[in-house]
Amino acid sequence: MSEEQGIYVIKGGSFERDTNYIEDRIVADVEATKLLPPPPASKIGNVGFGLSEGAQAWPVEPGRYRLIAAAACPWANRTLIVRRLLGLEDVISLGQPGPTHDWKSWTFDLDPNEVDPVLGTHWLRDNYLKRFPDYPRGITVPAIVEIESGMVVTNNYPQITLDFSTQWKAYHREGAPDLLPEDKLEEMWPVIKRIFTEVNNGVYRCGFAGSQEAYDAAYVRLWEAMDWLEERLAKQRYLMGDTITEADVRLFTTLARFDPVYHGHFKANRNKLSEMEHLWAYARDLYQTPGFGDTIDFEQIKQHYYITHSDINPTQVVPMGPDLSTWNEPHGREALGGSPFGDGTPPPPPKQ
Amino acid sequence: MSEEQGIYVIKGGSFERDTNYIEDRIVADVEATKLLPPPPASKIGNVGFGLSEGAQAWPVEPGRYRLIAAAACPWANRTLIVRRLLGLEDVISLGQPGPTHDWKSWTFDLDPNEVDPVLGTHWLRDNYLKRFPDYPRGITVPAIVEIESGMVVTNNYPQITLDFSTQWKAYHREGAPDLLPEDKLEEMWPVIKRIFTEVNNGVYRCGFAGSQEAYDAAYVRLWEAMDWLEERLAKQRYLMGDTITEADVRLFTTLARFDPVYHGHFKANRNKLSEMEHLWAYARDLYQTPGFGDTIDFEQIKQHYYITHSDINPTQVVPMGPDLSTWNEPHGREALGGSPFGDGTPPPPPKQ
Repeated sequence: MSEEQGIYVIKGGSFERDTNYIEDRIVADVEATKLLPPPPASKIGNVGFGLSEGAQAWPVEPGRYRLIAAAACPWANRTLIVRRLLGLEDVISLGQPGPTHDWKSWTFDLDPNEVDPVLGTHWLRDNYLKRFPDYPRGITVPAIVEIESGMVVTNNYPQITLDFSTQWKAYHREGAPDLLPEDKLEEMWPVIKRIFTEVNNGVYRCGFAGSQEAYDAAYVRLWEAMDWLEERLAKQRYLMGDTITEADVRLFTTLARFDPVYHGHFKANRNKLSEMEHLWAYARDLYQTPGFGDTIDFEQIKQHYYITHSDINPTQVVPMGPDLSTWNEPHGREALGGSPFGDGTPPPPPKQ
Repeated sequence: MSEEQGIYVIKGGSFERDTNYIEDRIVADVEATKLLPPPPASKIGNVGFGLSEGAQAWPVEPGRYRLIAAAACPWANRTLIVRRLLGLEDVISLGQPGPTHDWKSWTFDLDPNEVDPVLGTHWLRDNYLKRFPDYPRGITVPAIVEIESGMVVTNNYPQITLDFSTQWKAYHREGAPDLLPEDKLEEMWPVIKRIFTEVNNGVYRCGFAGSQEAYDAAYVRLWEAMDWLEERLAKQRYLMGDTITEADVRLFTTLARFDPVYHGHFKANRNKLSEMEHLWAYARDLYQTPGFGDTIDFEQIKQHYYITHSDINPTQVVPMGPDLSTWNEPHGREALGGSPFGDGTPPPPPKQ
């Protein structure tokens, strides 16, 4: 994701995330989807619903779309993980902008000639403008682009991973895990929602607070949720029980950034993640699970936040710490039972 | 101490501390001091030497001087500790500026009517100008002011604590420790010097680095020294052996600020102090020793750095973390033997 260029902190205010996205979907059955009722206003948990007002449905089709997902970005990171876990690499290709922005937001500055080899663009913005010439909002990742037209189909990040699970089923790899197990869904939505409002977004609320009062309130909210998670994960291996689910993916991408970035840069500093016994072991357990840790690039993560948010870090110096070698230490979570992939299997190593 | 207002980071450069101070001294024997050779250029370890070029000697005299030392400032904090340890409270009074600055630097904004009750000034700057109407350098604490004239006598912080030990001996409390033990001095000066250049000042070199290269080099230097200290303190209770010395005072004031400020604000973040077994236990041992922890005000410390350095932290938001309750946890350092005050005794509780 990306907020508007340069200014992240609104003086005197609290941080409010823009939750308006291009809410088109890529679905297995376009006509059937159009007949379903629109998704709930919460925008979290659209499984079994249809299209938001004004949104379009696009057909699932191998090779037609390209996922644009910067390794640095926690919201994009979700899509990288789910694509890996489900084995969608061969049907949805991947373009990766570098960690920092220029004034037009995300660029393909890590690619040869700084151009995405498939889309042919330097600025992701150009793919937004191909879709909507007057596109008025932030240029965000993840975005899914139709390769032939170069148009952004959707950047609606909470929905993209859900549709990977539910709409692309025909193309899942053998042994792919069920990240949305039917019998857990009802319990999972409130967990996912609380993780979003209190943790995923909670760290930004700390870091982008425009006043001491806004920050203090954000800090208290964040740590209340962190303590809830610490307790929840003391006795069960994953958020929803014995296997990984969508909820774990959503929590993990924030946890991976906690000590390298949020602790210092966003002042989410009651303690480091590594000082929370269960949550830290849980994070390492996931990190060491194929499909999770192999999507993490700590250097890009640090560069993204410390360089891009120049109104929080005017020197744009990127810290050398913390020591991240501890992510590979034994986590001991096997003792809680469970198995990440349930009846399934881990994905093979990344192809690149 | 205080650098020039507002701008702490020089873009593209490394941080260089101004080491020019008002180098007058308050001594037990004015005439004898004038006859001694001048101190070495290093400016660390002037014991047994005389006056710097152009400096004057003032006589030790109970009630004549007022120590101005903000609780927030690590350099001033040294003087607060040594004054407490040696029991000089009744002969040298204390004025304490608040943690933040206005454009004229340190102010007595915590006092009634925001005026020091003895000096009658609001700005410490005015006491500098009484001494030198064109005073060209930073308005720093600690400063010692002659009460009757309101003039700053000295702000030469590395010398003030040494003179408390050597020149004010006639007024030390019964049971005061010997912070400069004769048989340890030769070994102590290099330790004190390394702590100054690599740690006391090393954290500032990280935080005020004006380029990535300057920061990276500063970080490596700092952690090399931190590892040296960790090793040194693994097998002995204090820096120079079995009892506290001037060297411990000088290290402690930086350690007390490490996790609350330097870790995040200055990006000295390979790890927290609390992640270093021996150094952290050593810091808690000192914190729990009368005369050390009772001079620490974590809230003022955090406010000072996060609000004053607005070029590093433009929002001026002060973090709520870290959890500091752990400073009072058992440290287990008694097992190494030694006794903080040697043949002496701890100071009584602070009077205020």
